[in-house]
Amino acid sequence: MQNAIWNAAVDPDEGLPFSEEYEFFVPVRLLGGEKAVWRNRSLLPSLGKRCLLVTGKHSAISSGARQDVEEALKAEGISWSVFDGIGENPTLEACRAAARLCREERADFVLGIGGGSPMDAAKAVAVLAADPQLPEDLLFSKKWPAEPLPIAVVGTTSGTGSEISNVSVLTCSDGRKRSISGPSLYPTLSFGDPRYTYTMSRAATITTGLDAFAHAAEGYLSPKCGKITASFGEMAIPVLWRNLYKLYKGEELTETMHKELYEASLWAGFVLAANGASFPHPYGYVLTERYGVPHGRACTTFFPALLRRVEETAPSRAERLLTLCGCSREELEEVLYSLSDTDSIRMTEEEIEGLRSRFHGLKHYANVPGGYNEEWGIALFRELFLEKESGRGKTL
Amino acid sequence: MQNAIWNAAVDPDEGLPFSEEYEFFVPVRLLGGEKAVWRNRSLLPSLGKRCLLVTGKHSAISSGARQDVEEALKAEGISWSVFDGIGENPTLEACRAAARLCREERADFVLGIGGGSPMDAAKAVAVLAADPQLPEDLLFSKKWPAEPLPIAVVGTTSGTGSEISNVSVLTCSDGRKRSISGPSLYPTLSFGDPRYTYTMSRAATITTGLDAFAHAAEGYLSPKCGKITASFGEMAIPVLWRNLYKLYKGEELTETMHKELYEASLWAGFVLAANGASFPHPYGYVLTERYGVPHGRACTTFFPALLRRVEETAPSRAERLLTLCGCSREELEEVLYSLSDTDSIRMTEEEIEGLRSRFHGLKHYANVPGGYNEEWGIALFRELFLEKESGRGKTL
Repeated sequence: MQNAIWNAAVDPDEGLPFSEEYEFFVPVRLLGGEKAVWRNRSLLPSLGKRCLLVTGKHSAISSGARQDVEEALKAEGISWSVFDGIGENPTLEACRAAARLCREERADFVLGIGGGSPMDAAKAVAVLAADPQLPEDLLFSKKWPAEPLPIAVVGTTSGTGSEISNVSVLTCSDGRKRSISGPSLYPTLSFGDPRYTYTMSRAATITTGLDAFAHAAEGYLSPKCGKITASFGEMAIPVLWRNLYKLYKGEELTETMHKELYEASLWAGFVLAANGASFPHPYGYVLTERYGVPHGRACTTFFPALLRRVEETAPSRAERLLTLCGCSREELEEVLYSLSDTDSIRMTEEEIEGLRSRFHGLKHYANVPGGYNEEWGIALFRELFLEKESGRGKTL
Repeated sequence: MQNAIWNAAVDPDEGLPFSEEYEFFVPVRLLGGEKAVWRNRSLLPSLGKRCLLVTGKHSAISSGARQDVEEALKAEGISWSVFDGIGENPTLEACRAAARLCREERADFVLGIGGGSPMDAAKAVAVLAADPQLPEDLLFSKKWPAEPLPIAVVGTTSGTGSEISNVSVLTCSDGRKRSISGPSLYPTLSFGDPRYTYTMSRAATITTGLDAFAHAAEGYLSPKCGKITASFGEMAIPVLWRNLYKLYKGEELTETMHKELYEASLWAGFVLAANGASFPHPYGYVLTERYGVPHGRACTTFFPALLRRVEETAPSRAERLLTLCGCSREELEEVLYSLSDTDSIRMTEEEIEGLRSRFHGLKHYANVPGGYNEEWGIALFRELFLEKESGRGKTL
């Protein structure tokens, strides 16, 4: 047992040691466990006296999170307004509307409640509060008119990692997903109460669990991965995989499964925060934008291709990942393809060719041992989605 | 192997689960690996234009760290002055003198280079810069006249964890050790280049390695220990123990040993930052203040007593710690007693009794499963140090 643990902290692959040059910077006060909001409510006044809650329509209420937050705000004498118009894959337009309300109400800070969408939106609102009509080019080139407002978040799903990241992914007016980030977009306070995930549907649990797996596994396979980050990956991957496997097998959802997935999604968030995502993420955006595939399922559609690449360029790292999952590559592919459920998507040759410039020179390729490029990306899309007779699972 | 890894993330003891209520907050930008200072020098100007370097007499220079820092400051157009009068167990008086220089030179930030002493001193200087003669009661009750200056640190030993903590331990005018801490005492930048530890003496390597072991192991055994913190402990403890065992066996020091100890000391620092220390720390201060025992050796003198207590109150957690070390309790005690080398200390009954009020109600007892108290502390000091015929190792 000692050796297994020691392995967790050292190089699994002489050809790809965990990076000796690392940066660890997660300046978020993460407050975890049941009743985290109530137990730590005395920290809220440090953010201000007036708050804008940013949420979607449903989960903030059905999870019980909004009620807990409102009780805590009330107890601390903080007034609040609510913007509950954030949908899945939050639009910049919705964030602008929330920012207008934020200004009108003169809120001192923004508190996002929900999955990745409301939390990401809260970060954008914190930026846009100074100028809700800030042009897109200034927003995305980080030419912000003022310091963003302080941010707090309360997660209600088990996937995003937005709880501890400084990244906000927004859908722009042209329908494309783009992200903003910056040191002032880290949440000052992040409340992680696993109970809010207990009401998640099976479908949402699957897609957010897949998202968390993508964060942990893509980052773990990166040449940038340092030992500290690797240890978060080694914690997260077995837990995520074990529960995804249960979902694949059709087991009933339990509170224990929800709780394990939630905690592991936070650990996965640390991996994402340190290393960023690999190419399955930007490739997945295409499926989300054009076919409405939920984010997590979109990303893991491309994970087998990443793993195959790593098997060539850093075989021991790939092997270690499979050891952490406790399965063979074939089993891993079967489970991911089944849960991703993107098998029916079909694209034309033209549509796929049209992705070439978008796939060119992505920064995400630096997270692939030995690199990756748009040629392989185009070939991968052809393999997966080009109209043809035989099923995907068999030809891959 | 999968199970071992999964175990690392879960409860080893149904009687003492890792805490479900956790807080993770380490707002330090930790920049690790060889040439960390030079590679990340562009971050320095964010702290200011004038810098006070706070160091001891020797290790900052002999390690090469001061030269690297000065080259980086020069390259970034930052001017600096040097206060190199920090000794082991830094005195408040020395920090006041450094703070006076800091004011005279109108430094914008403080950069500590060295082991725990200069880094801890840098934090105190950052506070005292606003008023070098700030009375002790105001300093220790956190009634500070202004926000502390920004802090950067460059570690040169493998023990303290001060690199990522917001704690500064100072020796006051009455000879007692006291600590200050606060959210503004986290270093903004912490550079972790393992090469600076390669010139450490064997004696210094032993005592700082023991200190790091104390941080990791005391925190790991705490009922407060959450899963994230536990994973840092699970990373640190096997690496620290393996190298301490080599030192016990008389093996030659190698760069690999230094490097492993350094990285593991940072991981141990995360455990300390999250959970704080247990009673071996304050008990150890007595040996340091009165008998000049180096800090690490002083702390681990009391670790076997902590472990025995945990064997009674949370046996599986104690067992897991021994599994991480890969040895029996008897072996662990033998190695720690040998390396701590405090066997020859003898105290009178009066002297020991005089510690009673000091040992009463220590906050550190909350880190012991089942608690601890001054009665047991006094009995422990009698057992270890009261003049008697038989040797310590045999009667314990």
